[in-house]
Amino acid sequence: MPKDLYAQSGVDINKGNQAVKKIKEMVKKLGIQEIGKFSGFFPLKQKTRNPILVSSADGVGTKLKIAFLMDKHDTIGKDLVNHCINDILVYGAKPLFFLDYISTGKLEPAIVSSVVSGILEGCVENEFVLLGGETAEMPGFYSPGEYDLAGFIVGLVEKKKVIDGLKIKKGDLVIGLPSSGLHTNGYSLARNIVFEKLQLKVDSPVEGLEKTIGEELLEVHRSYLRPVQTLIAKDLIKGMAHITGGGFIDNIPRILPDDLGAQIERIWPVPSIFEFLVKAGKISKREQFRVFNMGIGMVLIIDKNNLSKVEKVLNSNKEKYFLIGQVKETKGKNRISIN
Amino acid sequence: MPKDLYAQSGVDINKGNQAVKKIKEMVKKLGIQEIGKFSGFFPLKQKTRNPILVSSADGVGTKLKIAFLMDKHDTIGKDLVNHCINDILVYGAKPLFFLDYISTGKLEPAIVSSVVSGILEGCVENEFVLLGGETAEMPGFYSPGEYDLAGFIVGLVEKKKVIDGLKIKKGDLVIGLPSSGLHTNGYSLARNIVFEKLQLKVDSPVEGLEKTIGEELLEVHRSYLRPVQTLIAKDLIKGMAHITGGGFIDNIPRILPDDLGAQIERIWPVPSIFEFLVKAGKISKREQFRVFNMGIGMVLIIDKNNLSKVEKVLNSNKEKYFLIGQVKETKGKNRISIN
Repeated sequence: MPKDLYAQSGVDINKGNQAVKKIKEMVKKLGIQEIGKFSGFFPLKQKTRNPILVSSADGVGTKLKIAFLMDKHDTIGKDLVNHCINDILVYGAKPLFFLDYISTGKLEPAIVSSVVSGILEGCVENEFVLLGGETAEMPGFYSPGEYDLAGFIVGLVEKKKVIDGLKIKKGDLVIGLPSSGLHTNGYSLARNIVFEKLQLKVDSPVEGLEKTIGEELLEVHRSYLRPVQTLIAKDLIKGMAHITGGGFIDNIPRILPDDLGAQIERIWPVPSIFEFLVKAGKISKREQFRVFNMGIGMVLIIDKNNLSKVEKVLNSNKEKYFLIGQVKETKGKNRISIN
Repeated sequence: MPKDLYAQSGVDINKGNQAVKKIKEMVKKLGIQEIGKFSGFFPLKQKTRNPILVSSADGVGTKLKIAFLMDKHDTIGKDLVNHCINDILVYGAKPLFFLDYISTGKLEPAIVSSVVSGILEGCVENEFVLLGGETAEMPGFYSPGEYDLAGFIVGLVEKKKVIDGLKIKKGDLVIGLPSSGLHTNGYSLARNIVFEKLQLKVDSPVEGLEKTIGEELLEVHRSYLRPVQTLIAKDLIKGMAHITGGGFIDNIPRILPDDLGAQIERIWPVPSIFEFLVKAGKISKREQFRVFNMGIGMVLIIDKNNLSKVEKVLNSNKEKYFLIGQVKETKGKNRISIN
């Protein structure tokens, strides 16, 4: 009688159970709710009047290829978690729980555990829980040692506290909060420049950069929850944009009323990694701001009369910030001008 | 100045926007909330006391390969939605909203739209909403024309109505509800048998099967929401198991107290597709019930005194069912015996 037929076809159920077991041990250690059954439970405390669940799905894009090249898998999960947090934070929502999807050709428990450890770390740092997830073994889908990764977040905001951008008006100020690197966008172009055009290796040192190019590119996408949540609580933010794929050009208009745009002044120090990529790739100014965050990962729109209050909160959170522009009346397609 | 640098690297932002636009049109047509910004909003109506959010992440596994082979992408999304519904339904939860993650090497708007149309259909049929999602273009991750697909569901159940299996006792009855085919598990083994061992094509007719082998394998994973929700409302179910990866052997014990098992009698008519695979693959009985659902996609545990009430509800819903076993005292590993 054939014993391990299913294993022979490329799926090993026992190995899958091993990975889940490892994950459960970590989850238990960190005091987070148990995972691994059909679904996860999250009891909703009813302190909020008119609660709105805010939910987002995301991946980390081809930043994964950098993790593969460096064989370093313990930070990419944190990129994913932080990306998702920022995507709901822009509406004023606080994260409740997270679920992950990891898909790979052949399950390597050590790699999966490493990825999940990053996810757990991201959850713990931002004080919310990993509620569950799926680890899929998909023979023939991925190259050996590679995987794809998606995350799902659910957060909560009170209806009357939703940050929807509707009160934004001409003359409001645009504040930029610094990014920690490329975050999770622009990697296809960056990889093309670094590994195809310049033929660098991940451990190549680059003039002007403190770390190797691999380390620079794998720098963790930061969460803006801590510095921003006090501003939200004090009702100091009119609109917020997470600078992800599409950069300033596509993301800022998402929170502006249709007849408004923004005039951005490039006054902040652009981090060396972007200067390097822009120069090596001969990237036009408009393209830079459409593909990369260029050193600003989160944009806040505030009333100009609140500037000193906002500055006080950010300073007390030791959060760097830059006053990078102003809201203006505009028409047509190019609503974001960059000087 | 290089104009389409980013497109040259394999990511086309405008094409991505096109797909999102197509999706938005469909969403609008179906009367579902708008998607496509940073995240989705779901207002929670506070009718439920002590609400518990129940959430699950899942994929459809290598059933995707059948969709690729048949170049038919409009049903796989429904598989995903229904799978996720069943995973939260087992705890008595009713679906609130869904998010999807589609990842592909090069975005083909027609394929993405087709996949999303299946997701939307699944949501509409089960009367809940697609709240958002991510379509990721990942050059170098997937073979041309291929993609991966993950889904994320959030449902709600009142705390005192959670179906947790704790009240299950010796002598309770096991009811099986028919599956519509392989659902979403056992595809690596099935593909191995059909396409490697037997060298069949997807359009090959097979003796004893009404449809081509491709059509049989792509048969949509059904949702059990409609027949089961009345039983839940009437408090007639003590425990429920969705027969997914791991089959009867791994899934039924998930809802049984530790000292109980089940004696299953194979009295239902096993659908021809399973008979065919088992015979062609020379699969042992234990392996059959660990890899495939063998014609039973959902298992309900009920009190024997409620049998006639349960039968009445299922009959009035025109739902077929089979009394397939009984709960018994057991110890050790093999808690599920199959006669």
